[in-house]
Amino acid sequence: MDTLGKTITCLAAIAWKTNSSLSLEEVQVEPPKAGEVRIKMISTGICGSDDHAIKGIIPLKYPFIPGHEGAGLVESIGEGVSSVKPGDKVLTLIVPQCRECSACLNPKGNFCEKQDILPSSGLMLDGTSRFTCKGEKIYHSFRTSTFSEYTVVPEISVVKIDAAAPMDKICVISCEVPTGYGAAVHSAKVTPGSTCVVFGLGGIGSAIVMGCKASGASRIIGVDINEEKFPRARALGVTDCLNPSNLKKPVQEAVKEMTGISVDFAFEAIGLAETMVAAWDSCHVSHGVCIITGVSPPNSKFSLSAQTVSTGRTLKGVCLGGVLGNRTVWSSHT
Amino acid sequence: MDTLGKTITCLAAIAWKTNSSLSLEEVQVEPPKAGEVRIKMISTGICGSDDHAIKGIIPLKYPFIPGHEGAGLVESIGEGVSSVKPGDKVLTLIVPQCRECSACLNPKGNFCEKQDILPSSGLMLDGTSRFTCKGEKIYHSFRTSTFSEYTVVPEISVVKIDAAAPMDKICVISCEVPTGYGAAVHSAKVTPGSTCVVFGLGGIGSAIVMGCKASGASRIIGVDINEEKFPRARALGVTDCLNPSNLKKPVQEAVKEMTGISVDFAFEAIGLAETMVAAWDSCHVSHGVCIITGVSPPNSKFSLSAQTVSTGRTLKGVCLGGVLGNRTVWSSHT
Repeated sequence: MDTLGKTITCLAAIAWKTNSSLSLEEVQVEPPKAGEVRIKMISTGICGSDDHAIKGIIPLKYPFIPGHEGAGLVESIGEGVSSVKPGDKVLTLIVPQCRECSACLNPKGNFCEKQDILPSSGLMLDGTSRFTCKGEKIYHSFRTSTFSEYTVVPEISVVKIDAAAPMDKICVISCEVPTGYGAAVHSAKVTPGSTCVVFGLGGIGSAIVMGCKASGASRIIGVDINEEKFPRARALGVTDCLNPSNLKKPVQEAVKEMTGISVDFAFEAIGLAETMVAAWDSCHVSHGVCIITGVSPPNSKFSLSAQTVSTGRTLKGVCLGGVLGNRTVWSSHT
Repeated sequence: MDTLGKTITCLAAIAWKTNSSLSLEEVQVEPPKAGEVRIKMISTGICGSDDHAIKGIIPLKYPFIPGHEGAGLVESIGEGVSSVKPGDKVLTLIVPQCRECSACLNPKGNFCEKQDILPSSGLMLDGTSRFTCKGEKIYHSFRTSTFSEYTVVPEISVVKIDAAAPMDKICVISCEVPTGYGAAVHSAKVTPGSTCVVFGLGGIGSAIVMGCKASGASRIIGVDINEEKFPRARALGVTDCLNPSNLKKPVQEAVKEMTGISVDFAFEAIGLAETMVAAWDSCHVSHGVCIITGVSPPNSKFSLSAQTVSTGRTLKGVCLGGVLGNRTVWSSHT
């Protein structure tokens, strides 16, 4: 452990400005302060939210190191850290769990007040950064910044995983899988025999489909403008694929015609106000549940006909599938 | 029963055109057809939705007889009616329960496909009216039209009540009380010790307050621009009254300051897009539940910042408090 207590120089990908290509740079990573963990990254997923951050759709401070779906080994821990120790395999969490705030103390929801997504400071909880590059302060993203060989994260954003976990695959368990699967199983509580529609068949949408299928949905309609995603979607459980570009009517009208009336559960996994409205309109007016997992641009408006609100439908936003990162998903490992 | 099988001539209040005063007229009320019930009205409430209908906010066909919160005695029944008999005390229901449609067959929700609110045909289920006035066809409202000495309603819009029920008071049990009380107890499932805000302290809002108090809410903030409603609201359980007209900031900001962060449950009982947004913004971003009971004008848009949707809040529209009119509320009497 010759790095203990020392600043580490390593490689990291930096987003210097909005919508630019990432640049591979030598960065300095300070040791963890109290309540923090320094992690040697082994693998990281690339989530749509990282792409949104790089494009400025989720507004972050530049320059920053993206990435939040990380799997790695604890290199060292700051004062007071007790849930992990050097050498532990861990995942990073985009939504922390401080267990002290108004969100954590409520049995529902998971959007801990110490999150750094909306809004984002780009700094650790003490208001400073652990990264520099060529003498310049580099901001964190979501207090995870996994696109670096070493990163520093708050202890509340880390969860220990099984020592036998395959590190090349498990990183997506950090966000993508619980976000989608949790949205279907935990937030929507999809019921056996129900009909579902999933807007967006990327990583999150695929995990939603798996959650719907595992919950016993009898029909799962998958919607995407990229038909290359359809074979995988069908393999995961989608029963009907729709490409809105090929339709002469709004996709919600096509969904209503296919189902005779509308669906019991609709999921939006893109982050566009337009598809959020399509998901809402696809839901049964009396008992339909519309789940939004996509994060949209800051000035985007989700505009519903106010009269359509009063008949019984439910709209629910979900971050990280509504699961408690370091308690629910990995409870058997902690 | 000398009226049996005959057309009855009696008095009714008619809305001849949008936003006009009601006109008391002699009307002809035909006998009930198959599956219908003719009722001698004893009392009726005046609900905000009747006012909305008269003003054209809920679009109905003119001329029509308003009213849906009715208590009366069954005068006669059509072929096949089995749940009530002549002489029974009954309430009329704005939301029927056919027990056969996609809404009724689902364990959640209550917005039966045979409702005649959104949209409204103004006609009975067979597409005809039972009312005429001076030879002109008069439309029904919500298939209840309780502002008449006699009315005809579908059997699915009627529920038998206890023979000892006080007829001058019980009519508001038909809609106002379950709409508000049910919104708090049944739809929001207000939890003990929680904080709530209620926008609009009229009949529905008052019933919401009672539901919040009965559920053990520790703080109930009541919002209205008419301060004359505040003493009654306090008597029912409101702990803090807010008049937005007296505030120098948006009411949702005042609610956040008063509570330190925001409320657990917010209720909109007015039917304005502006107060719906204020209710949404007043909710805790992680676990807040926003319940909409008000019906807004047809072209009104409920426009949310799309990013605020993704953090965990729930928006739920509720009609008649989410209760099943002829099963839940009066189950002990049937």
